[in-house]
Amino acid sequence: MPTLSVFMDVPLAQRLEGSLLKTYKQDNCPNKIFLAFRVCMTSEGHPWVSSVVPKIRLQIAYDPSLNYEYVPVKGMKSFTEASLKLLFGKHSQVIMENRVGGVHTVGDNGAFQLGAQFLKIWRKDSQIVYIISSKKEPYGLVFQDMGFTVCEYSFWDSKQLCIDSNVLLDVVEQAPHGCIFVIGNLGDCNLTQSQWARLMASMKSKQIFPFFDIPNQGLSTGDLEEDTGFLQYFVSQGFEFFCSQSLSNTFGIYDEGVGILVVVALNNQLLLCVLSQLMKLTQALWLNPPTTGARIITSILCNPALQEEWKQSLKGLVENIMLIKEKVKEKLRLLGTPGSWDHITDQNGPHSYLGLNFQQVEYLVKKKHIYLPKNGRINFSCINACNIDYITQSISEAVLSTKGSE
Amino acid sequence: MPTLSVFMDVPLAQRLEGSLLKTYKQDNCPNKIFLAFRVCMTSEGHPWVSSVVPKIRLQIAYDPSLNYEYVPVKGMKSFTEASLKLLFGKHSQVIMENRVGGVHTVGDNGAFQLGAQFLKIWRKDSQIVYIISSKKEPYGLVFQDMGFTVCEYSFWDSKQLCIDSNVLLDVVEQAPHGCIFVIGNLGDCNLTQSQWARLMASMKSKQIFPFFDIPNQGLSTGDLEEDTGFLQYFVSQGFEFFCSQSLSNTFGIYDEGVGILVVVALNNQLLLCVLSQLMKLTQALWLNPPTTGARIITSILCNPALQEEWKQSLKGLVENIMLIKEKVKEKLRLLGTPGSWDHITDQNGPHSYLGLNFQQVEYLVKKKHIYLPKNGRINFSCINACNIDYITQSISEAVLSTKGSE
Repeated sequence: MPTLSVFMDVPLAQRLEGSLLKTYKQDNCPNKIFLAFRVCMTSEGHPWVSSVVPKIRLQIAYDPSLNYEYVPVKGMKSFTEASLKLLFGKHSQVIMENRVGGVHTVGDNGAFQLGAQFLKIWRKDSQIVYIISSKKEPYGLVFQDMGFTVCEYSFWDSKQLCIDSNVLLDVVEQAPHGCIFVIGNLGDCNLTQSQWARLMASMKSKQIFPFFDIPNQGLSTGDLEEDTGFLQYFVSQGFEFFCSQSLSNTFGIYDEGVGILVVVALNNQLLLCVLSQLMKLTQALWLNPPTTGARIITSILCNPALQEEWKQSLKGLVENIMLIKEKVKEKLRLLGTPGSWDHITDQNGPHSYLGLNFQQVEYLVKKKHIYLPKNGRINFSCINACNIDYITQSISEAVLSTKGSE
Repeated sequence: MPTLSVFMDVPLAQRLEGSLLKTYKQDNCPNKIFLAFRVCMTSEGHPWVSSVVPKIRLQIAYDPSLNYEYVPVKGMKSFTEASLKLLFGKHSQVIMENRVGGVHTVGDNGAFQLGAQFLKIWRKDSQIVYIISSKKEPYGLVFQDMGFTVCEYSFWDSKQLCIDSNVLLDVVEQAPHGCIFVIGNLGDCNLTQSQWARLMASMKSKQIFPFFDIPNQGLSTGDLEEDTGFLQYFVSQGFEFFCSQSLSNTFGIYDEGVGILVVVALNNQLLLCVLSQLMKLTQALWLNPPTTGARIITSILCNPALQEEWKQSLKGLVENIMLIKEKVKEKLRLLGTPGSWDHITDQNGPHSYLGLNFQQVEYLVKKKHIYLPKNGRINFSCINACNIDYITQSISEAVLSTKGSE
């Protein structure tokens, strides 16, 4: 009798992401273009790397004084400190008051995995998570797998082609008491003073717990402080929150997936309790985090000249993205494509909605071999001098060809 | 009314490990010695690094062809392949038959975290884990936190001062059907042919699932193949199993915590199902693993000359540990310490039992500022020319001073 397998009941798991990329890779058309890379691309079509990073890699490799011992469970202290200063500013109230801390996390999902585990244990009465739809995969799945109820929302108004900040307010006002709110850069919502006040009042009265996601500090406006200014506002309003601060993208060290789970508490004593519980969880997750990414970032952030060089490189990247968006808009207009296309330049950051409907997206993928997600949110840094004409021409065709059918 | 904290019910977590190290660090005595480092130390008292590693670090930093893009969820394919060849040998049956695979994991605990999550979901009927006591912290805690029942066992016979392989057989024979068995290097147990046969029969009939832990391949005997030969035996007997293969220690890249969760299945189809489920879990855990450690190891393993240099450096390390053990034994004998002390040289690897009782350990810690775990299992590479006389003299005193009280 042949032995039965221990694994006989294990089915093949569906792959969650990457199917678009897979189809793109299998496409033999020489004109194929992929517009959904997670990372920023250079005008030559390579992943962007800050000019200061290769220098630091060499410097680290040559440094005889470095030891390569295990770092503590909490991670590299200098890295956490430098990253928190970057996120909140050196003279931030919350740093002065010693009530912000962080745990060095691994990979793009590490901070969400760790934070979700904590919330699962310590906020038993509120296991509902609201998450912005662009973050549903993969972050929402982390919560879902842990048994949270996950609700999606989106600010993007596909009719008006703009971010509708009222949607945010409506969602918050309809959300249940005590839920967890996963949210990206609130600065991009352009809330008015009165909308801010309404949002704060709602979140406070409902004891909604914010879990911010900052994967690209600086890539939204080109100004590091401006991008995270809204966090200061939450601090000043007496909120406690978590924040997933990822740093790989803004340095161009994508393969080192390094970040921090940031904790803001009302006082230092509470903070220490939360950090101690997080460390217990970290110990079970990976025990000691890998350090190369943290070492590169710390070396840059702790040296004013290198930090300045890094900031300039980041600014250059953002300016290039803005320029690409302007060009795409201009070319679409010159081609006589119906619509103002102002929504392209009105949105911040590399990832923005093209404002196409499902049929138009299908047209681009199927007929033009231009791969983009169904919601039409693309990475504008994937567009460059070599492909911009083909892309804009194709978008124009897609819009015109589906005009009558709407 | 002041705002109530979200975190008001969160207590300070007890630190699980590191308390011995903490006490050592706080000790102001100039003669203090720590004998419980996890990593191998050089004769100068620094963490050991294979001589080939610094060269590779430079080579990687200088390589303009490398890209630093995200690696797939499964990790670096070349790294996994090279590591599996190292573990099983190039011409292993299980590699030929395409029924072994691995997922690139993060940190020292990553493979256990991932494996335990899988077993929690897919082996619901057997949530009991037997774990060797030296691995209880931190690996046992990973299982415990996930709701498994964790039972400890130990082979070390503190009366006879030897590894008692009958204990292993007894434990297996008394263990419940279908339990998970976490075990280190079985080669160190010196099982006889008939004991092996009894062990295999017991494990098979009870459908016990082995979860091996190989953190130091090569450090036991100095021979990489010999150290993992027992895995081949399990393969040939038709077992399916998991194995946590950690590679940081044997290269001396402790701060890159890199490893693999190895899966052996009865056939390729079953393997692919298991790997797909593991990737789904990995996605939630860290999404993309950091690569520096994997890159260093792959560069070495895929180049025959570098691999040879690495093997030689590993051999040198093991020979030095054997020499230290011989010297400790000799010095203890010359000091007239009661006992044969053969058990020191009879055990393989850097971590071995000194064969002291709790009172003797207490004496060393309290009176001599020599820090070692309660079970007296020390890292012999922490002993060097500078401290060997003080250590052996102190052990001798400890034994003599507690002689009458036993």
